[in-house]
Amino acid sequence: MFRIEKIAVVLLVLIGLSSSPAIGAEQAKSDSLPSWNEGASKKSIVDFVARVTREGGPDYVKPEERIATFDHDGTLWAEQPMYFQIAFAMDRVKALAPKHPDWKNKQPFKAVFDNDTKALALLGETGFLKIIAATHTGMTTDEFNKIVADWIATTRHPRFNRLYTELVYQPMLELLNFVRANGFKTFIVSGGGVEFMRVFTERIYGIPPEQIVGSSGVVRFQLRPDGKPVLLKESKIEFVDDGPGKPVGINRFIGRRPIFAFGNSDGDQQMLEWTAAGSGARFMGLVHHTDAEREWAYDRKSYVGRLDKALDEANAKGWTVVSMKTDWKRIFPFEQ
Amino acid sequence: MFRIEKIAVVLLVLIGLSSSPAIGAEQAKSDSLPSWNEGASKKSIVDFVARVTREGGPDYVKPEERIATFDHDGTLWAEQPMYFQIAFAMDRVKALAPKHPDWKNKQPFKAVFDNDTKALALLGETGFLKIIAATHTGMTTDEFNKIVADWIATTRHPRFNRLYTELVYQPMLELLNFVRANGFKTFIVSGGGVEFMRVFTERIYGIPPEQIVGSSGVVRFQLRPDGKPVLLKESKIEFVDDGPGKPVGINRFIGRRPIFAFGNSDGDQQMLEWTAAGSGARFMGLVHHTDAEREWAYDRKSYVGRLDKALDEANAKGWTVVSMKTDWKRIFPFEQ
Repeated sequence: MFRIEKIAVVLLVLIGLSSSPAIGAEQAKSDSLPSWNEGASKKSIVDFVARVTREGGPDYVKPEERIATFDHDGTLWAEQPMYFQIAFAMDRVKALAPKHPDWKNKQPFKAVFDNDTKALALLGETGFLKIIAATHTGMTTDEFNKIVADWIATTRHPRFNRLYTELVYQPMLELLNFVRANGFKTFIVSGGGVEFMRVFTERIYGIPPEQIVGSSGVVRFQLRPDGKPVLLKESKIEFVDDGPGKPVGINRFIGRRPIFAFGNSDGDQQMLEWTAAGSGARFMGLVHHTDAEREWAYDRKSYVGRLDKALDEANAKGWTVVSMKTDWKRIFPFEQ
Repeated sequence: MFRIEKIAVVLLVLIGLSSSPAIGAEQAKSDSLPSWNEGASKKSIVDFVARVTREGGPDYVKPEERIATFDHDGTLWAEQPMYFQIAFAMDRVKALAPKHPDWKNKQPFKAVFDNDTKALALLGETGFLKIIAATHTGMTTDEFNKIVADWIATTRHPRFNRLYTELVYQPMLELLNFVRANGFKTFIVSGGGVEFMRVFTERIYGIPPEQIVGSSGVVRFQLRPDGKPVLLKESKIEFVDDGPGKPVGINRFIGRRPIFAFGNSDGDQQMLEWTAAGSGARFMGLVHHTDAEREWAYDRKSYVGRLDKALDEANAKGWTVVSMKTDWKRIFPFEQ
């Protein structure tokens, strides 16, 4: 139950910190970060990358040690009005409803049918976990991948009327390319479900499945009577890659400490602390959601993506805090 | 307890199948597999690599899908007379003995001090688990890494009087290089401990830590009173990457199905089945330990690395079974 409760926390609390932008080392002059305004945030990134890639310099880091980790929800794509994976789960509840007539008057499903997000929130973690269990398990990994692929290819965000995959942050796409061009290996380290993300993260971020770290449920190998092996998704949480789980996930999946990490919420605090505690040059960044007009503005009081303790720590320790409003010229790729 | 028992199985049963050798696609002519004798095994590898890399051909596979997974013990390095990680654990028991006077007459530790491997075997999984818990946990990941690094740099194998890292198979080193030169990404998928392996696998195989999948114990993030974060290794098994756990580990860590897999024991059977069940061209290989003179000869009756059911399946399905004795010109790099 400990783990089950934690995944709910992940699902409920993954929206809020911030990540840091900049130009780039050698490429800095031609500006490979065109969507970033000139300023301290951009400069901190560009300077860091220049320092660790300067051969013979005091802060030089060998390419194989240039590990960069990025949170996903709220750091690489938006996360309002709810984590996109929760929107997916709610859509799945509706799609599966004909097979489950008993759900009609039963919580938490009733709240989903009523689009009653307040009631849902009141149902708390247990309610969300029931929804996740009902929509993410009891099928093979291949079946789940196909369901996610179909949903992500067709479903539009209520505010922007865009595919969810269009709500990625243009400055962060540039940043991913910029650090990769400087020899970094980029990873996503997210509280979101690892199998959910992997369906589209290679296409939209250029990050392959094996560089995605996330939360997961138990999966079981089964040899079917016809001799075909399958992996079955079971309704038990296995690992919650959030908060103190992020350094644990980094240790387990990557096996090296990042030298560069970006998040946007208190769920990223321990990842940034773990990154900061290594020897040599380090970069810690937070995306601060400060633009209610172009995106959303939220931090310390937000239910999703709360950025409170990590913001204090970032300010105290001089980590880079990127203000969406002032640091980013453009937020989404579809903006002109 | 279920998982704890399984790790013991891993530790006890990880020695025996086999992997398959060959020249190389375009490089085949200049022979990038010089330690492989000409024959069906080498040909099956070279032909497979040629087919999946031929652009426009019916079996072409894009580079990002060229995932190759290799078991470790008995597939990339030797595993007799006991898994090398168990030799490490036994050495650690001896090193720690002064701090634990109560171990002297207490099993399983007494059997270690007496070098009584038969008694140890009779103590079974529980005995090994006590040794693993006593030697692999209760410290930070950094502390553990240093202990492994010191041991692996100095300890010699009893039969060959060579460092354990010298007991890698030259033909498999060539094979790793050969498939990488043809655009494959190579992974180790082993029942061994992931943190143990990562200390040296990049240096000896050219496989970075993030491409090592293995068994693991629970690790916990802790912020020390001085503000320094550490990861503590706890005495609870988290994941056993063996047998049916291998496809699960592949799904979790890699998130793609391999098209090429090599093992040497029944613990690799499900990994090979999972690989075989994908669409398109597939390669499944086993290293069969058939050379008592240069290495060891064992299979169906071996306590460690048993190769029995997987050998039957390989024969029935036409997977490549590499005979060390007849397929490999040279086994270890130190041979002339």
